[in-house]
Amino acid sequence: MIILGIDPGTATTGYGIVRQDTSGKLIPIDFGAILTFPETPVIERLSQIYDAVNLLIDKHSPDAVATERLFFSKNETTAISVGRAIGVILLAIAQHNLPWTEYTPMQVKQAVTGTGSADKKQIQWMVTRLLGLKAAPKPDDTADALAIAICHAHSAKLGALGVRNR
Amino acid sequence: MIILGIDPGTATTGYGIVRQDTSGKLIPIDFGAILTFPETPVIERLSQIYDAVNLLIDKHSPDAVATERLFFSKNETTAISVGRAIGVILLAIAQHNLPWTEYTPMQVKQAVTGTGSADKKQIQWMVTRLLGLKAAPKPDDTADALAIAICHAHSAKLGALGVRNR
Repeated sequence: MIILGIDPGTATTGYGIVRQDTSGKLIPIDFGAILTFPETPVIERLSQIYDAVNLLIDKHSPDAVATERLFFSKNETTAISVGRAIGVILLAIAQHNLPWTEYTPMQVKQAVTGTGSADKKQIQWMVTRLLGLKAAPKPDDTADALAIAICHAHSAKLGALGVRNR
Repeated sequence: MIILGIDPGTATTGYGIVRQDTSGKLIPIDFGAILTFPETPVIERLSQIYDAVNLLIDKHSPDAVATERLFFSKNETTAISVGRAIGVILLAIAQHNLPWTEYTPMQVKQAVTGTGSADKKQIQWMVTRLLGLKAAPKPDDTADALAIAICHAHSAKLGALGVRNR
């Protein structure tokens, strides 16, 4: 099974593609970040994100896509902005008829480190270790996207548990 | 000039298409609402909104699109949800290379009624009158979308003033 994990954002959308073999072992296939720039009009930035996600899906043919469910404590402008990026990402997923699961940050932390209160460093360390990488993936959004893919692999194995398709 | 006004939402996206003739007169071409249902998975709802906006653009070939800039006082979950819908709407606009302008609710009220503090009833009354309609367009989101299109027509005439392309 090939899983595409995505950590959405307007400026930086992290992505990580992980293959899980029949023994359950996780193999990193590709990871990185889709970057867009503040100088670019927002509708073009959304178009760039949409095109990049389509390219990733076409290139790697994932069996499933997982994203992080985002929460914001104060800034509604940021929520709208990230919401727009999530919108075009979900559209690309829908147009490929791929199963999509959304996980809370706590579910991702729990699945990757065993504790819902893990910090960024712990997540990066576990992602690096679980995928046999030589160094922690950069930027943070890329490490987070790989963590989301790992979370989905673990949840799928357990027959569980994301917030599916809502 | 043909203007497409859109009032975005996940459940109800209002739309209004207005033509402005060379004398400045506004003629309603089409208006209504794109409805999606809570039982439908969110990625399919986004896909439906995107497809419907593409259909409207293909059918009416607007010269410009205007949307309302939304603000939320408390609910970030709603902001994310509406943000997702805005994302796929802006993508459809970007893919048609159409000029896009965003107006604040106050700009729309000011342009349509002459006062930034107008209520829904006043806006509906003015939209009905300015477009020579027999009754106020329903639902509210449709009246709002027509108000946004009218706002853009007035602003374009004055050589002004929306929040362009950001």
